[in-house]
Amino acid sequence: MIYFNNDYAEGCHQKVLEALAGTNMEQTPGYGEDEYCAKAAGKIRALCGREDAAVHFLVGGTQANLTVIDAALRPHQGALCAASGHINGHETGAVEATGHKVLTVPSADGKITAAQVERVVLAHRADSSFEHTVQPKLVYISNPTELGTLYTLAELEALSDTCHKLGLYLFLDGARLGYGLAAMGNDVTLPDIARLCDVFYIGGTKVGALFGEAVVMGNPVLAEDFRYLIKQHGGMLAKGRLLGVQFDALMTDGLYFEIAAYADRLADKLRETFHRLNIPFLVPGITNQLFPILPDAVLEKLSEKYVFCEQERVDETHRAVRFCTSWATRPEAVDALCADLCRLCGGES
Amino acid sequence: MIYFNNDYAEGCHQKVLEALAGTNMEQTPGYGEDEYCAKAAGKIRALCGREDAAVHFLVGGTQANLTVIDAALRPHQGALCAASGHINGHETGAVEATGHKVLTVPSADGKITAAQVERVVLAHRADSSFEHTVQPKLVYISNPTELGTLYTLAELEALSDTCHKLGLYLFLDGARLGYGLAAMGNDVTLPDIARLCDVFYIGGTKVGALFGEAVVMGNPVLAEDFRYLIKQHGGMLAKGRLLGVQFDALMTDGLYFEIAAYADRLADKLRETFHRLNIPFLVPGITNQLFPILPDAVLEKLSEKYVFCEQERVDETHRAVRFCTSWATRPEAVDALCADLCRLCGGES
Amino acid sequence: MIYFNNDYAEGCHQKVLEALAGTNMEQTPGYGEDEYCAKAAGKIRALCGREDAAVHFLVGGTQANLTVIDAALRPHQGALCAASGHINGHETGAVEATGHKVLTVPSADGKITAAQVERVVLAHRADSSFEHTVQPKLVYISNPTELGTLYTLAELEALSDTCHKLGLYLFLDGARLGYGLAAMGNDVTLPDIARLCDVFYIGGTKVGALFGEAVVMGNPVLAEDFRYLIKQHGGMLAKGRLLGVQFDALMTDGLYFEIAAYADRLADKLRETFHRLNIPFLVPGITNQLFPILPDAVLEKLSEKYVFCEQERVDETHRAVRFCTSWATRPEAVDALCADLCRLCGGES
Amino acid sequence: MIYFNNDYAEGCHQKVLEALAGTNMEQTPGYGEDEYCAKAAGKIRALCGREDAAVHFLVGGTQANLTVIDAALRPHQGALCAASGHINGHETGAVEATGHKVLTVPSADGKITAAQVERVVLAHRADSSFEHTVQPKLVYISNPTELGTLYTLAELEALSDTCHKLGLYLFLDGARLGYGLAAMGNDVTLPDIARLCDVFYIGGTKVGALFGEAVVMGNPVLAEDFRYLIKQHGGMLAKGRLLGVQFDALMTDGLYFEIAAYADRLADKLRETFHRLNIPFLVPGITNQLFPILPDAVLEKLSEKYVFCEQERVDETHRAVRFCTSWATRPEAVDALCADLCRLCGGES
Repeated sequence: MIYFNNDYAEGCHQKVLEALAGTNMEQTPGYGEDEYCAKAAGKIRALCGREDAAVHFLVGGTQANLTVIDAALRPHQGALCAASGHINGHETGAVEATGHKVLTVPSADGKITAAQVERVVLAHRADSSFEHTVQPKLVYISNPTELGTLYTLAELEALSDTCHKLGLYLFLDGARLGYGLAAMGNDVTLPDIARLCDVFYIGGTKVGALFGEAVVMGNPVLAEDFRYLIKQHGGMLAKGRLLGVQFDALMTDGLYFEIAAYADRLADKLRETFHRLNIPFLVPGITNQLFPILPDAVLEKLSEKYVFCEQERVDETHRAVRFCTSWATRPEAVDALCADLCRLCGGES
Repeated sequence: MIYFNNDYAEGCHQKVLEALAGTNMEQTPGYGEDEYCAKAAGKIRALCGREDAAVHFLVGGTQANLTVIDAALRPHQGALCAASGHINGHETGAVEATGHKVLTVPSADGKITAAQVERVVLAHRADSSFEHTVQPKLVYISNPTELGTLYTLAELEALSDTCHKLGLYLFLDGARLGYGLAAMGNDVTLPDIARLCDVFYIGGTKVGALFGEAVVMGNPVLAEDFRYLIKQHGGMLAKGRLLGVQFDALMTDGLYFEIAAYADRLADKLRETFHRLNIPFLVPGITNQLFPILPDAVLEKLSEKYVFCEQERVDETHRAVRFCTSWATRPEAVDALCADLCRLCGGES
Repeated sequence: MIYFNNDYAEGCHQKVLEALAGTNMEQTPGYGEDEYCAKAAGKIRALCGREDAAVHFLVGGTQANLTVIDAALRPHQGALCAASGHINGHETGAVEATGHKVLTVPSADGKITAAQVERVVLAHRADSSFEHTVQPKLVYISNPTELGTLYTLAELEALSDTCHKLGLYLFLDGARLGYGLAAMGNDVTLPDIARLCDVFYIGGTKVGALFGEAVVMGNPVLAEDFRYLIKQHGGMLAKGRLLGVQFDALMTDGLYFEIAAYADRLADKLRETFHRLNIPFLVPGITNQLFPILPDAVLEKLSEKYVFCEQERVDETHRAVRFCTSWATRPEAVDALCADLCRLCGGES
Repeated sequence: MIYFNNDYAEGCHQKVLEALAGTNMEQTPGYGEDEYCAKAAGKIRALCGREDAAVHFLVGGTQANLTVIDAALRPHQGALCAASGHINGHETGAVEATGHKVLTVPSADGKITAAQVERVVLAHRADSSFEHTVQPKLVYISNPTELGTLYTLAELEALSDTCHKLGLYLFLDGARLGYGLAAMGNDVTLPDIARLCDVFYIGGTKVGALFGEAVVMGNPVLAEDFRYLIKQHGGMLAKGRLLGVQFDALMTDGLYFEIAAYADRLADKLRETFHRLNIPFLVPGITNQLFPILPDAVLEKLSEKYVFCEQERVDETHRAVRFCTSWATRPEAVDALCADLCRLCGGES
């Protein structure tokens, strides 16, 4: 079987593995206070153009989300996001388990707009019994979103302006950030994100690392005492250097960006095939996730050879599914899939 | 510098590294639903003599502690442990962050007795306003303890009997379990633990793995829906197979027990040297942790060459410190330390 | 000004006040362990036809909701309700503050159907990554709902059957239960509710008491150790007898039901006037809450003399508002309002 | 039976009852936004000499404690108190249920010293792995303490200075504050407390009210958004005016202080009798709580006629018990008890 179901089916990029193996028997201080973490953090700060930012390495995305949000909010405050936001539907109530409500706005494409944020916040403040409702204090976005879409620079600037004008924090979940930055048509850079968000993370788990997310905190209020919160939530790895070593490797000589671009180009190739075959998408996209809508019969055939994700039923005979490429996807796998698609969906054959 | 300060200064055992490297580019399902986790769990069940036990792999000790305790308790219930218990003093209130009070009893050697448990529980029940106090429902012990001591089989049986007679769960934190099982003089086996505890874990982080703790749940009440709790607390590794691969390697051909014994024998050698030099211990022990009481002047000298942990000041001129050996300790390092100790403390010899 | 904005603008019914005054200097045990609580609980059990039920008195609705839900759920479980449910939008995230997500389904009339519950639960169980989502375990309904609507016996039976078939608890918030039971057209009795719900409460705050809600737990699983949870959440009144004395008075000689019927009849009179004037309602209803849709100009006039609640804007010139009657509403106040409405909205005038 | 077991066995002072009855049918806004709350808050601010303070009325002590502490702390921070502190042992883990650890220091008399606070905080900061432990951020004291002792002005000033020098909040639980202020020998005034504490409360439940604690927040950081937290924790009384009316009555013409002094004088009389009979105390005191140590045989005799509280066993034939007077204690009850004590313990005299 060939796996296109997600971007974390393999281990890590060869260079990351080599870095881990090469440092394996070194003795270092624990809990992220080693020189590899320091080096990796330095490289990230430089790439972000934010020498003042705090950088912390966490093991995974849910852990990063819950720790950041718990650090940012007082008890009566909530995190606002799209209804499709990962924290709302796919983290078993991790944010609520820290005591905070996730407030949602509807979204067709996984994004949330500055206007939506403003509407929610002003409505809250105008409510005569506002103290009976949760106070929105942080906006959570993911980029790319759960539906593979990307914020434009203009959208991100508007969100950032609105959040800061209203006294809210802007938090960007970058579990797949590399695939967003490397997408053809993306106009947002890492320094843009570091400038516009109070806190965000650069996802490693899905982009070449065994595991790990690099949390970048430009807002010093959020950074205060953050290591206590990492520890309290069980996220402080004894051998913290494993995170430092991996991110150091990924951030050296542009490896992170190069392997993300590699995956995006394979996705582009696949996307082009879908387009050519007039196969519609649930949502358009330019990153490593594709959500084509295919006939059940075709999907049944494909599932004999390929693993992919069910997204949703569209009508009685069609379902939207998800295909992902990643840094580890082999070009031949994409070629095979394209060929099979042409065979199954192509007019002539 | 030579590190004796803890047992997690290096990466992982060579065989674990080889297993990770050898499986790196395989594609597997995520979140621990891969065949490596299944294989490792099977080996652990067999070694425990509990084919009925649920086995879950978590990343680290604090994460394991908070997730197990949160899964076990209703809101008004607390975990009872020695005041020196790791959950009480070294996890930044991780258990309290899940809403539960840690109840403590005093302990000179890090252990808690069946009589103490019974006293606390009966006093709670006899209190006319018992509903105004937290209900003890789970006993947390570590074995070896934070002070390197071990429970005897008789002590563990008494604790288990008392807990079950009183309707409490017994939870054993085995972050250093290998070093306990392999200690000369230990009379407790892995099947004993699996039989006597409702839940316990086999520590990998400190015994040969990059990271990972294998939680073994003999009590099916605790196991129900446990994966939800792992996810909610941010402990579900996307590439869960990393845990499976590592524990599979450690549980193959007795590797885990062999490397733990190796560390214990080095500790024995060091212990013998302290004994020979009439250097007293803060607490006696037989595992890989040693807590000698040394003159400040000697410690100052030693600190030029060795890294060790401060434990506590004993009197105006002496401090107790901690030296650890591990699976990664080199025999020459122990030889050097022994020689230096003889030179510094030996008089003639 | 005449208040129609809610049903808690006054103190308590004269008989309740007399009971409080009459027992004021008696000495009783604290924390609800007095004979008045016992007597009131006995009367409630008898009225419910459930001699086996546990009865606990809490001070207010939010307190009752959060304490019951926290007692019922394990950490990964959530409460399912209509999006308009009080716990979802008007309790400042009180349920989330206990760690639990509130799961919602859309509802036009404030009610949730058995079919909705079944759909949500089956979809959760069919999800291949169900452990990444919150497990629905309790259904929260209010009766009357926040929109003044009532469940029919058939609806309530269907909900109860579905919940129990699927292993969920059914919890009914009866903050305004009296007004529901006494409504013309209601076909649900107190014994029906006690038979069909695992837990519910009889609201006192809005029906004649100074404060207080009587929680009735027919399901013994929920009742276990409930007093600990009351205390933990700050809900255990030192002078618990205040609750017992009030409910004893309300449950004597049908006072509770009589004063609720009185309020409902006044609401009926007002409702009839709206009908006669062809004033539409946001939602139809038969209890003490009315949600007429009125022209802004009329509302402006009315607001010079009456206090009412804003509900929502309906179109550019109309708003839905809420008028409530209560046990304390004076008939002359209703007459005056009816007369003013006729004058302002009536054809002739 | 005559109750000396606590100071909340009766309802409320006659003047409080009259105020409740006299305002019973008035219509007021809900949730504490009525004029009675405003008036009572104004009187309290004036009595405290702090026109800038925020005043909030809560229903009970545990509720006040958990709400204030949850409002004050970030997740990794804890409340420091004497081991005998009410929040540590008698509130069913209410503080932990909000996610915060209660940190304790030993205390023989229920008080905590500035030196103890400094020691704990400096030790925390000096710990090389401080992030693995809970950060002390708030000092909780009660005055009078759970053992009936009082802070002197010098002690309170030292505590306040130390807290503020170290960046901690000082929170005073004044559940029995009236009895402390009115004690013969007390040198602390209400303005002193308002000046020295960041937050404290004036207890009503035990001093003449049916229920209610007036939280006074001199530190504006703590006051921010406090009403959200009251609501979230289920503490926002719909008929909030009940609290306003009661505190307005208590704070009018010195009623609160007068009735507290009355109780203290009765306690003084009883205390004098114990002294005269050479009956020792577990802890000396000057407020309305007395902790005499009496022979079991005497206690058995006394228990035929009086209700008192068990405190602790002192030796094989003696127990310490608690006798309380209150605003409601009848002088004849004290006379009878004194006479019986003389008879039972007096020998000749």
